[in-house]
Amino acid sequence: MPLTDRIEGAVTRALGTTQGGSAPKQLAEALGYACLPGGARIRPTILLSVAMACGDDKPRMADAAAASLELIHCASLVHDDLPCFDDAEVRRGKPSVHRAYSQPLAVLTGDSLIILAFQTLARAAAVDGARAAQLSLTLSERTGMPNGICAGQGWESEPEIDLGAYHRSKTAALFIAATQMGAISAGHEPEAWYDLGALIGEAFQVADDLRDALLDEATLGKPVGQDDLHGRPNAVAELGVEGAFKHLSDILAGAIASIPSCPGEAALAKIVSMQAERIMPAVPARYQV
Amino acid sequence: MPLTDRIEGAVTRALGTTQGGSAPKQLAEALGYACLPGGARIRPTILLSVAMACGDDKPRMADAAAASLELIHCASLVHDDLPCFDDAEVRRGKPSVHRAYSQPLAVLTGDSLIILAFQTLARAAAVDGARAAQLSLTLSERTGMPNGICAGQGWESEPEIDLGAYHRSKTAALFIAATQMGAISAGHEPEAWYDLGALIGEAFQVADDLRDALLDEATLGKPVGQDDLHGRPNAVAELGVEGAFKHLSDILAGAIASIPSCPGEAALAKIVSMQAERIMPAVPARYQV
Repeated sequence: MPLTDRIEGAVTRALGTTQGGSAPKQLAEALGYACLPGGARIRPTILLSVAMACGDDKPRMADAAAASLELIHCASLVHDDLPCFDDAEVRRGKPSVHRAYSQPLAVLTGDSLIILAFQTLARAAAVDGARAAQLSLTLSERTGMPNGICAGQGWESEPEIDLGAYHRSKTAALFIAATQMGAISAGHEPEAWYDLGALIGEAFQVADDLRDALLDEATLGKPVGQDDLHGRPNAVAELGVEGAFKHLSDILAGAIASIPSCPGEAALAKIVSMQAERIMPAVPARYQV
Repeated sequence: MPLTDRIEGAVTRALGTTQGGSAPKQLAEALGYACLPGGARIRPTILLSVAMACGDDKPRMADAAAASLELIHCASLVHDDLPCFDDAEVRRGKPSVHRAYSQPLAVLTGDSLIILAFQTLARAAAVDGARAAQLSLTLSERTGMPNGICAGQGWESEPEIDLGAYHRSKTAALFIAATQMGAISAGHEPEAWYDLGALIGEAFQVADDLRDALLDEATLGKPVGQDDLHGRPNAVAELGVEGAFKHLSDILAGAIASIPSCPGEAALAKIVSMQAERIMPAVPARYQV
């Protein structure tokens, strides 16, 4: 089965459990609105790719892990878009959740998706209890405090930002979760998979900085120039556009080199390269040699 | 060890895991601010009381369950106090989290506490994996959609409210979680413990309606008259003050009668009566016979 079918199937099945007859209608609808249709699904794609590289001996476990990670990512987008953070009007080419529904429903949508992520893993304990618990622990560590995406967002409220901690938690955390949860899903130890996730996360951050600096709003599907607007640190400000492109290539080469020995090592390297091409912004004409 | 020491110890240990050297300072501080000192800790008290009535053979599991439930409750208070919901200035006699810190930090505090709740259960899988997974599933079902407290809050955005579903999810859900998680922690089946939780929840809702209608802000430590203000349904509006007091007594008698046969049945009945007295608002002079 193609990866995208596995991911959409797993996310849709998880969302289905929230739609009981006693559910308030708008919130039930908003949960689907926030997750479907999805974006690039890069995190669950990486997760399943690592699981397959490690043998994917319990695909239902990997599917649950992929869904839980994507649900957390979608939750973070809904909350990050709120007026008190980015105040984004548009997300994935349509009105953000608080614009389409309301602020109360956007807060509750994020909360409900976070809870659903952990519920999805709790249900998967029926497949393998030990792996489900390890997945839940890893996901929580990369989502909450002190090292997860909540911490990353929390840094933006500090008068002085620890740049290393900020980038590791804000962006890299869910990529580290992706590679480590992929390994855990297939019964492998997660430690060896830290570097791959961290490097993909770093690449993603630099690519996002480049996109934020270069592309127009129509192409991106969300407001641009947000980093400048909010005074957040970014690679383009630090290295310039050309320097940031060079840095991005170096990081991706390092990511592929970091892949641990495993049955599907070569295939995984190919997938990481493909994902890298997807995240790489088009080089604008004025920067092409 | 007294129950309050077990609860405070478990909550404090859980919060300790969020305070690493790389944590953003204000968010780390806000997590503690939202949970310590606590309120009445009624939900974890009920949880531990049920666990003890069921033998409490793995107290570390019950402690983790109690902490996770209280963290979820604290998270819900932080988000419910936000300007887009109750816009509460005061909580537990001090400024609400968004007033003391900021709206962004209040959103992140709630998110981080939800995640910490599930992390606490994932860590407890080391004590008993099957019970930890069942606890995580039960907590998620009573917290998220379609039957948890998020659903309850979501009903307030609907043009027409299903009153039964609203009260079951808004208030009773975490009391059902309390009794069922207490049973699960001690290796008992949760089904028989549904009614006790649901009835305590109903009593709590009626008591809250009475308090909201009768008491002054200084005594309550939060703004009063919120239900009237937001047009939410409540027992006093429906039954009058005297009728609501009578209804409350009946529910509590039913709750005690519903306690399943278990080794500590009599002791638990006593504890439920004591908790009932704590939640029962003082009858104002003008309503006393």
